[in-house]
Amino acid sequence: MTLFLRRAATTIIGLPLVVLFVYLGGKLFLTLCCAVALVGLREFYVAFSKKDRLIHVIGYLATIGYFGAISEFGAGNWLLIALTFFVITVQTCLVVFFRTLPISECITTVYGFLYVPFMFSFVVLVREHAFGHYYVWLILTASFGCDTFAYLTGSLFGKNKLKNTPSPSKSFEGLVGGIIGATLIGLVYGVVINHFFGEKDAAAHIVLIATVISFFGAIFSIIGDLAASAVKRHCEIKDFGNLFPGHGGVMDRMDSIVTVAPIVYMAMTVMFWFVGLEI
Amino acid sequence: MTLFLRRAATTIIGLPLVVLFVYLGGKLFLTLCCAVALVGLREFYVAFSKKDRLIHVIGYLATIGYFGAISEFGAGNWLLIALTFFVITVQTCLVVFFRTLPISECITTVYGFLYVPFMFSFVVLVREHAFGHYYVWLILTASFGCDTFAYLTGSLFGKNKLKNTPSPSKSFEGLVGGIIGATLIGLVYGVVINHFFGEKDAAAHIVLIATVISFFGAIFSIIGDLAASAVKRHCEIKDFGNLFPGHGGVMDRMDSIVTVAPIVYMAMTVMFWFVGLEI
Repeated sequence: MTLFLRRAATTIIGLPLVVLFVYLGGKLFLTLCCAVALVGLREFYVAFSKKDRLIHVIGYLATIGYFGAISEFGAGNWLLIALTFFVITVQTCLVVFFRTLPISECITTVYGFLYVPFMFSFVVLVREHAFGHYYVWLILTASFGCDTFAYLTGSLFGKNKLKNTPSPSKSFEGLVGGIIGATLIGLVYGVVINHFFGEKDAAAHIVLIATVISFFGAIFSIIGDLAASAVKRHCEIKDFGNLFPGHGGVMDRMDSIVTVAPIVYMAMTVMFWFVGLEI
Repeated sequence: MTLFLRRAATTIIGLPLVVLFVYLGGKLFLTLCCAVALVGLREFYVAFSKKDRLIHVIGYLATIGYFGAISEFGAGNWLLIALTFFVITVQTCLVVFFRTLPISECITTVYGFLYVPFMFSFVVLVREHAFGHYYVWLILTASFGCDTFAYLTGSLFGKNKLKNTPSPSKSFEGLVGGIIGATLIGLVYGVVINHFFGEKDAAAHIVLIATVISFFGAIFSIIGDLAASAVKRHCEIKDFGNLFPGHGGVMDRMDSIVTVAPIVYMAMTVMFWFVGLEI
């Protein structure tokens, strides 16, 4: 019960703050996202390496450089350059510290960057998109909504457990409930926005786009959740950290966000491209 | 001596073909680069996993998708989307094949994609750049020029061996000779282009830009070469393959290209940005 209360308290304090910062957007939101990505990245690195290592600093600097490139130039060429520069820097470390640096550490450093800050940066890319202030909320509803509905449906109807998966205590019924629930939230959200902003700007097709985005978002929310469980099992840890009382570390809370955010960005880009909106 | 002859024969046949395809550019060049990247990627994967694995197919498909995105949309947003899609697909595999797929295989699959096709794709991005037909040649002169000059200088003056590095038989004098040689080639190339095309288009500042690009290109050619040696030592192999008689596999020949190409793209973008050319 204490755990439940701590979870609830963290949510009650944390969620309005998240909503506020997402609403504000801009440099403040970007800076906050960069900080969150840095903490999450450290959790990932320490989970794999069991300690801090000098090469991880390259990952942190790359994170700051990457978010800086987003802040200065938005999505596009400079992000590719930042990413490449990071990979080459890691390889340079491999050469310079040849005898003392296991190659597995280099590879994990690169993968961690992709897994945490790179994927997470799509939250900012969606928010700063011309129509992002409408669609960024779907990242939250798809991942947290799917989580909540999956938990509820699973508790009530869960019979067929997900054996041989990273989370064997979860059930197939829960997954389906989570996807349906999150998709419905997206549909309702689209209808509400459409009602208030009508068929103009990004609000055009928003019912369709929001529903489709939420559906795919929910599926990949589950994948993100299970993938993080697989990583945790591999690293033999229960949680990535203990920053949020009752919720674990940043990566325990963000495990779905990091897969949902790019999917939302992708779905937006693809669907805007189909309906002929500028991207 | 037989080895020398086979090397020479491969070069005499191969180099004019490379020059022809680079000169032609377009879809044919892009397709060829994609094929080369696929072969190189397989060499990398097999070096690490010691055999073909199902998950590698994701890497090959991602390579084709990535080069397809370059072909269709050029550098920018869609490349980020292709890359993200690939990472998420690998994580999906991790979830689906949880018990049979070691997480190290997932991480290596992602790293291999970045190391080979992603980095190599910058050859195409440079070539297809508005001024790329001037600058793409610097990728070849910086990497092969540096190799050749380093070999010559090292053979003649090499005294201080690079102990404790992945290539202990190479010498410090060789490195310096390689960098000076490649930079001089860049300078001469810039002067020649400037002479024939004058101070217009990309030819503006080409002497300066070509020299600077070649200098950094040569440094990162050496890093690429040593990093590949470190990978080979880790995987306990002498060569990545035996496709080119006397030269080894694709990755043995491309080990510098994959680090030089992004550096050339980066240096072009940064210097054009400084001199105020559109990028």
